[in-house]
Amino acid sequence: MLETEYCSLSPKNIYMKTILSLLQKTRVASSQMAQLSDKKRSELIHAIAEALEENSSTILAANKKDYDAMADTDPKKDRLLLTSERIRGIVSDVHTVADLPDPTGNILLERTLENGIQLQKISVPLGVVGVIYESRPNVTVDVSALALRSGNAAVLRGGSDAVHSNEAIVSIIHRVLERYGLPVDIVQLLPTDRKFVKELLQAEKYVDIIIPRGSQKLIQFVRENSVIPTIETGAGVCHTFVEKSADLQKATNIVVNAKTQRPSVCNALDTVLVSTEIAKKFLPLILPDFEKFEVEIFADKRSHEILKTTGYPHLQQAKEEDFGREFLSQKCSVKIVDSFEEALQHIEKYSSRHSEAIVSEDKELCEQFLTRVDAASVFANASTRFSDGGVYGLGAEIGISTQKLHARGPFALEKLTTEKWILRGDGQVRE
Amino acid sequence: MLETEYCSLSPKNIYMKTILSLLQKTRVASSQMAQLSDKKRSELIHAIAEALEENSSTILAANKKDYDAMADTDPKKDRLLLTSERIRGIVSDVHTVADLPDPTGNILLERTLENGIQLQKISVPLGVVGVIYESRPNVTVDVSALALRSGNAAVLRGGSDAVHSNEAIVSIIHRVLERYGLPVDIVQLLPTDRKFVKELLQAEKYVDIIIPRGSQKLIQFVRENSVIPTIETGAGVCHTFVEKSADLQKATNIVVNAKTQRPSVCNALDTVLVSTEIAKKFLPLILPDFEKFEVEIFADKRSHEILKTTGYPHLQQAKEEDFGREFLSQKCSVKIVDSFEEALQHIEKYSSRHSEAIVSEDKELCEQFLTRVDAASVFANASTRFSDGGVYGLGAEIGISTQKLHARGPFALEKLTTEKWILRGDGQVRE
Repeated sequence: MLETEYCSLSPKNIYMKTILSLLQKTRVASSQMAQLSDKKRSELIHAIAEALEENSSTILAANKKDYDAMADTDPKKDRLLLTSERIRGIVSDVHTVADLPDPTGNILLERTLENGIQLQKISVPLGVVGVIYESRPNVTVDVSALALRSGNAAVLRGGSDAVHSNEAIVSIIHRVLERYGLPVDIVQLLPTDRKFVKELLQAEKYVDIIIPRGSQKLIQFVRENSVIPTIETGAGVCHTFVEKSADLQKATNIVVNAKTQRPSVCNALDTVLVSTEIAKKFLPLILPDFEKFEVEIFADKRSHEILKTTGYPHLQQAKEEDFGREFLSQKCSVKIVDSFEEALQHIEKYSSRHSEAIVSEDKELCEQFLTRVDAASVFANASTRFSDGGVYGLGAEIGISTQKLHARGPFALEKLTTEKWILRGDGQVRE
Repeated sequence: MLETEYCSLSPKNIYMKTILSLLQKTRVASSQMAQLSDKKRSELIHAIAEALEENSSTILAANKKDYDAMADTDPKKDRLLLTSERIRGIVSDVHTVADLPDPTGNILLERTLENGIQLQKISVPLGVVGVIYESRPNVTVDVSALALRSGNAAVLRGGSDAVHSNEAIVSIIHRVLERYGLPVDIVQLLPTDRKFVKELLQAEKYVDIIIPRGSQKLIQFVRENSVIPTIETGAGVCHTFVEKSADLQKATNIVVNAKTQRPSVCNALDTVLVSTEIAKKFLPLILPDFEKFEVEIFADKRSHEILKTTGYPHLQQAKEEDFGREFLSQKCSVKIVDSFEEALQHIEKYSSRHSEAIVSEDKELCEQFLTRVDAASVFANASTRFSDGGVYGLGAEIGISTQKLHARGPFALEKLTTEKWILRGDGQVRE
């Protein structure tokens, strides 16, 4: 990241020593956003989708600048790239967000107190949502749409790699906000100078929540430096336990799907645990499909002995660090366990508490697993790949939260709200 | 705080260089607590209440040691003191917590996905709840009861001032846990050595939530040093806006009650805002009661001119710092505002977003106030003193949260839970 890069949207910023004035403007503007009706918010977001579509050539030209500036060897290059087709996908997602039900104004609790006061707890916008992300310009659009849909303002700190793309996108959003008579500060793209990240993380007066999206290093940095409450969308170290009573055909399908269908995502399988009793019978069943995808297996001592007899070509002996490891590629570790309790202990020790599965025909054991395993999503006889806000019917998600406060599991629109207690009285005082 | 004080419960600890092993034990023990049925948890807590009552003389003797060791001039001395009557109050509160409805196991969402998977979102215990507090030994009991009621384990870091009291209380709780065949590590009293606080705040692997209870300084320290998600139970800078259409009798009752009934608490009034049109008529009405309680008034220029003509004895000119100040005593500031918008701007600038009130007979203006003011609790025509979990019908509260994530306003039993997504399938895989 360059140390001297500034957001060209506001030329004044070139002389700016602090971003606090920008954040303050967003805080002030956020109250106008919070007061917009559901219908107006939905209209506004449809209008943004249309404007992005109409101006896609501008976005593509800006993106080309970013793309050309990035080294061809940079693994982030594909994530940075926008194409006409990708923009069409983004635009369609924005229309979908516009049509999601309003998460604000829900009455969460309602009662009349003994003294006659009418008490309500309702869902209201958080206020200002801050997002720190890396080179994906689609995040700029996704987060803006979700924040505005829920009546929030957004503070965006994208990567310097994507600065031209992000500026082009935010300029288009700003023109739509202006057309609706709203302050452009409702969507604030921050300069990418690194020192401003720390400043943002200390600005608890102006920003209500920080969501880091990106590498573990970024998340760790935010966790350690933020005084603003943070939602962590962390790594997924996901286990599937094939228990001795499992239907082996189901188990094969589930393990193969969880590992190979999209290995680069957080809900993909990392470790297969298998009961001793069925290991010899089960392990060979997954090999034909694993071989198609060239899945590299890191096997513990006992499973290695079974697997080496099959001549499977991508087999290694597991080291300790291959358990609790998020592979994000066509690799997995395998371990044989002697009991249900041993499987649970292994998961307790190595899980990142994201998504955990059991395959078993023993209903009672399945229920024990679902109750006792501490993870955001727990599965019986299904692939961990289903761990997803869209699949759960929540609409677009910002990420999968692996922490326990406020949001756990898919972090979607409804979690961009907070609660407010409203009391309507007629002169009541406390005795 | 002494630098070399250790918890005498575990003599081995004298040689302990780190508290991580204690926290790990609590993490392991927490799963046994999470599996206890509602009925067993309720029984356990009633048993704790009974044991505290039976052993009250032991607690009183330990408390006397702490009390005698504290300087007579220490303002914390009264908060430290336990008496037979106070213990009876604490015991009664514990019985009440035991009878609260179980906050875990609630089905928050339930649907069948198109592929036939049964999806549920349910409330489950957080796991390990950490509390850092100062000299009130009753917190040891309250927090233990609330944590256990919701299926959590508790890590307690009390002040060194109350070490004997806390040890006596926790020993009694431990004996009850043992009687129920549960590990004593479910309630872990940490040594009071200061360096362990930082260690606790970094132990995200073992502790799921940190709740600081005490001074602003303590809360600030926790916010800056914790990598564990924190619930802030912050200060209350509370305004009451007496709008020009107000019923002046209601307004007088509400302002006097909000200021004088219990000034030391966070929901007490700090600043009165009053419309220009009614200031001359309204301000003299509050003076007779204010004089009874010797309320010191810090008045802005215009209200000072009105008030000085009354000869009110406890009148001063307000300085800038008297607005946005939490008095916690029989003091308040007064300001005259020219419009509804000016009142809202003042509150936006100075409020700590805890509890804010309007007194007005204009229904529409009341609704605008309730919608636009950003605070945990907002009131129309009622005293801010009602801002309380007990009043809201939530049972015992741990504090009033002034932040927006997870819990806002009264932080009670239901917020000691997190969510878990459970998926029951029959071999489904993702396309």
